[in-house]
Amino acid sequence: MNGTSVSTSTNVSIGNNSNDLRQSQQYLQLYQPPQINGDFLGKHIISVSQFNRHDLEILFDATASIRKRLRQNDRGLLQLLAGKMMATLFYEASTRTDMSFQAAMRHLGGEVIAASNGVQFSSVYKGENLADTVRAAGCYADVVILRHPLVGSSYEAAYYLDRLGEQIKRRPVIISGGDGTGEHPSQALLDIFTIYDFKKRIDNLMITLVGDLRNGRTVHSLARLIARYEAVGTTLCLVSPESLRMPSAIVEFVSAHGVHVIETDNLAEVLDHSDVIYWTRIQEERFEDRSEYEAIKDGFIMRPETLAQARPDTILMHPLPRKHEMGTPADHDALDADPRSVYFQQMENGMFVRMTLLAKALGGLWV
Amino acid sequence: MNGTSVSTSTNVSIGNNSNDLRQSQQYLQLYQPPQINGDFLGKHIISVSQFNRHDLEILFDATASIRKRLRQNDRGLLQLLAGKMMATLFYEASTRTDMSFQAAMRHLGGEVIAASNGVQFSSVYKGENLADTVRAAGCYADVVILRHPLVGSSYEAAYYLDRLGEQIKRRPVIISGGDGTGEHPSQALLDIFTIYDFKKRIDNLMITLVGDLRNGRTVHSLARLIARYEAVGTTLCLVSPESLRMPSAIVEFVSAHGVHVIETDNLAEVLDHSDVIYWTRIQEERFEDRSEYEAIKDGFIMRPETLAQARPDTILMHPLPRKHEMGTPADHDALDADPRSVYFQQMENGMFVRMTLLAKALGGLWV
Amino acid sequence: MNGTSVSTSTNVSIGNNSNDLRQSQQYLQLYQPPQINGDFLGKHIISVSQFNRHDLEILFDATASIRKRLRQNDRGLLQLLAGKMMATLFYEASTRTDMSFQAAMRHLGGEVIAASNGVQFSSVYKGENLADTVRAAGCYADVVILRHPLVGSSYEAAYYLDRLGEQIKRRPVIISGGDGTGEHPSQALLDIFTIYDFKKRIDNLMITLVGDLRNGRTVHSLARLIARYEAVGTTLCLVSPESLRMPSAIVEFVSAHGVHVIETDNLAEVLDHSDVIYWTRIQEERFEDRSEYEAIKDGFIMRPETLAQARPDTILMHPLPRKHEMGTPADHDALDADPRSVYFQQMENGMFVRMTLLAKALGGLWV
Repeated sequence: MNGTSVSTSTNVSIGNNSNDLRQSQQYLQLYQPPQINGDFLGKHIISVSQFNRHDLEILFDATASIRKRLRQNDRGLLQLLAGKMMATLFYEASTRTDMSFQAAMRHLGGEVIAASNGVQFSSVYKGENLADTVRAAGCYADVVILRHPLVGSSYEAAYYLDRLGEQIKRRPVIISGGDGTGEHPSQALLDIFTIYDFKKRIDNLMITLVGDLRNGRTVHSLARLIARYEAVGTTLCLVSPESLRMPSAIVEFVSAHGVHVIETDNLAEVLDHSDVIYWTRIQEERFEDRSEYEAIKDGFIMRPETLAQARPDTILMHPLPRKHEMGTPADHDALDADPRSVYFQQMENGMFVRMTLLAKALGGLWV
Repeated sequence: MNGTSVSTSTNVSIGNNSNDLRQSQQYLQLYQPPQINGDFLGKHIISVSQFNRHDLEILFDATASIRKRLRQNDRGLLQLLAGKMMATLFYEASTRTDMSFQAAMRHLGGEVIAASNGVQFSSVYKGENLADTVRAAGCYADVVILRHPLVGSSYEAAYYLDRLGEQIKRRPVIISGGDGTGEHPSQALLDIFTIYDFKKRIDNLMITLVGDLRNGRTVHSLARLIARYEAVGTTLCLVSPESLRMPSAIVEFVSAHGVHVIETDNLAEVLDHSDVIYWTRIQEERFEDRSEYEAIKDGFIMRPETLAQARPDTILMHPLPRKHEMGTPADHDALDADPRSVYFQQMENGMFVRMTLLAKALGGLWV
Repeated sequence: MNGTSVSTSTNVSIGNNSNDLRQSQQYLQLYQPPQINGDFLGKHIISVSQFNRHDLEILFDATASIRKRLRQNDRGLLQLLAGKMMATLFYEASTRTDMSFQAAMRHLGGEVIAASNGVQFSSVYKGENLADTVRAAGCYADVVILRHPLVGSSYEAAYYLDRLGEQIKRRPVIISGGDGTGEHPSQALLDIFTIYDFKKRIDNLMITLVGDLRNGRTVHSLARLIARYEAVGTTLCLVSPESLRMPSAIVEFVSAHGVHVIETDNLAEVLDHSDVIYWTRIQEERFEDRSEYEAIKDGFIMRPETLAQARPDTILMHPLPRKHEMGTPADHDALDADPRSVYFQQMENGMFVRMTLLAKALGGLWV
């Protein structure tokens, strides 16, 4: 049920006893997260690569069900994880991920602990490494939510929680809340659930991702997840400036799973064919040449007049927070009032999806 | 049941699309908070102007009742808001308001979420505006407690939570925890409840407010609330240095509601007639002329020898925290031991009043 | 049941009204914590000096029992402190103490409040003193967990909570989470419980404390607690550099209680006789002469080859967090995999011991 270490030795020789070589990133090779394969119980959730179509279908159904129960004020929900403990370790701020995980756990009757002053002021400050801090959290909790700036940190945490489990005879699980430029799996899961929720399918859709597709963690994970769903008849439109195209490895991965891919730098070409528009920000500092940014930036701002050209049944998504990529505050107000804008529902879905992940990973009675 | 937007357009034109013109303060005109009129359910609580005498009488009764039940360890309280979620957004620190709201929600069986690292390190840091952050909190919670340094921020939050409600088909409420130099309604409510609690009436009292009455948010709100109660036969004594007098608009408002007002810079004139003495701090930095401060400061320090001159049935209140305005630490100890000092009971009442507000606004079974 | 003030006056004259003379440390003389004497109910827990052998035996039994119930997912635990409120005031970070107290309270069905942004950003910032802040917490909570950098702060808090109790007719208790270089009683209690847990006795053991025994709060408290247990036939081995020896007052206290003491600077002399090795860090900055540090430092690093020389039934403890005193990260991994290393179990025991303290001090039904 656990993930398996690639190495067979317990005292894995990681590098040459040098801190430099023990970076979190090494755990991407060292630790292999377990496939869900229809059963979430006791499994770390640190990568979209753990999910297949069937797992996502389970997730969609369970999330819709849990949302319905919550809206009906079904107090039975409060029994599902009663007595279970969640620890949050947020090494960088992320209001939405943080608060929605807390709300999710509490809506299921579970409890939440965190460093009162924020983990950045805590043992870490005293020089403790992640492996030890995550095991401290694991000693007090059944599930640890980790947000960390380093790629691979969630794999490292999973690895060390498995080691801890051997000692305390109880293995806490980790659910990643995002690791640097790596993955943010629960974000990708709430994104694909939101598409399913509004369009009632993932197959036969035209899904358009817009913005900085080279650096955007969110769009990488969502693209990979659509591929893992093996969506039939679906086209993924990738709209970005030439210098910020989606990495070819991801494009190839998606294509290899039967999803048609279109790449362009011109939204107008695909806008009125899109069932889903997923909007993200382009940051000026990504451009070496400022004039290049100036030349393209207006094409990557979603304004009410842009949305006006989309089909009536298109949905506009955004991971939030947003800044200038949706224009002025007045543009925000206008976009928000458009029924095609579903990013607030998408945000709320984040809580429902996380309720499902927690309930299934921790074995709430209902799962 | 909601507050009503003054403008009829959904995409309100706020200024000229300029951030400078979209300041929170504009929402004081744009948004009109709903009158309580005997029914708290589903209403934002952002101003003392929402309350009339009848509403306050309801609040006094309910608060006394809820306090009694809590002291009797009545576990039924834990059912009142079971399954309800409160989010705290504290953009500035306020230990008492923050902790008492948390305790209030939890004593009613409700749950609390907050940004683990403090909201000041969160999305805000990434440049997100209040309208979006408060809607994020609203997506995960039934009630948002907002503390923010800008006047009008609570009105802005109420406005945008109403917008959010149109989208997610569930309207979270906000309860203000203080907005800058604006209002701090739950503080004023706990203050007036404490007067009622000890004196068994608001009518026919002599209530003396002392300190910086020009800048003090607390004393402004309390004065307005006494006026809204339309206290019969009550005198409000306003004791301040000449340069820090209560704004004339508030004095006129209070007088217009039948409360007699006396203004003086000499406490001795009114001390032994006062039923209630409400003490606040004078800050040196409010004086342009330091010599003016030096000349008057000793008259605005409450010391044991000052209190000695008050009547035996007078109560001494203070919103806390306190610094030099109650003398030395030894003065604190002496004042604290005087049975007329009720500021700790006043502080505890803060929790009971907030329990009442939460239970009534969220529709706990008991209300 | 309360502690008794040494002074008979309520308005204790503490110094000459000067803040400088009102330091927390004065309360070590001014306030005498109550002896447990078999009854924890309503008592502050701020010093190991409150415990005798019988109290520790009660604690050991209760902790083993509560751990068993938690591991069996006994939901009855959630009823023990239902409706009770704990406030955490952490003036310095301490992930383990903080999170384990939170988890402990919540596993017993109690609730937890804290300043959302960390207490260091709160009223304290506005210049409020500890006496007032701790009473604010006491107004909203039944138990306050205080971590503070000043010696005597927990005594000061206990003193002022007793004063508060006279006013609000309900006396909250404090449990210390560590006060500066003073005491950290719950750490010492979890340490001695861990010894008992693995060795089934405190009598007839050879317990070796290693590291900076002059400055280490943890080892001071543990040594004193072993003395208070009046362990029969037990030897305490104190291994430190000459300049960092255990204070003679503690050595004399331990000897006077019938525990044999050996002092040495050479671990090799006692390693293979030790039943328990309690490892702590030596900090370079403690040495005036850097060459002295260089000369001895290697003898105070626990490495796998050091542990290899210990007996098979020895246990290796550490209060954590750890840094270079357990070698490189690879050394950590090797030590962690050794079944004699019990510091993770020790850490987990921290939560169980704190559950016992909370349940007993607050009068959970089970005690």
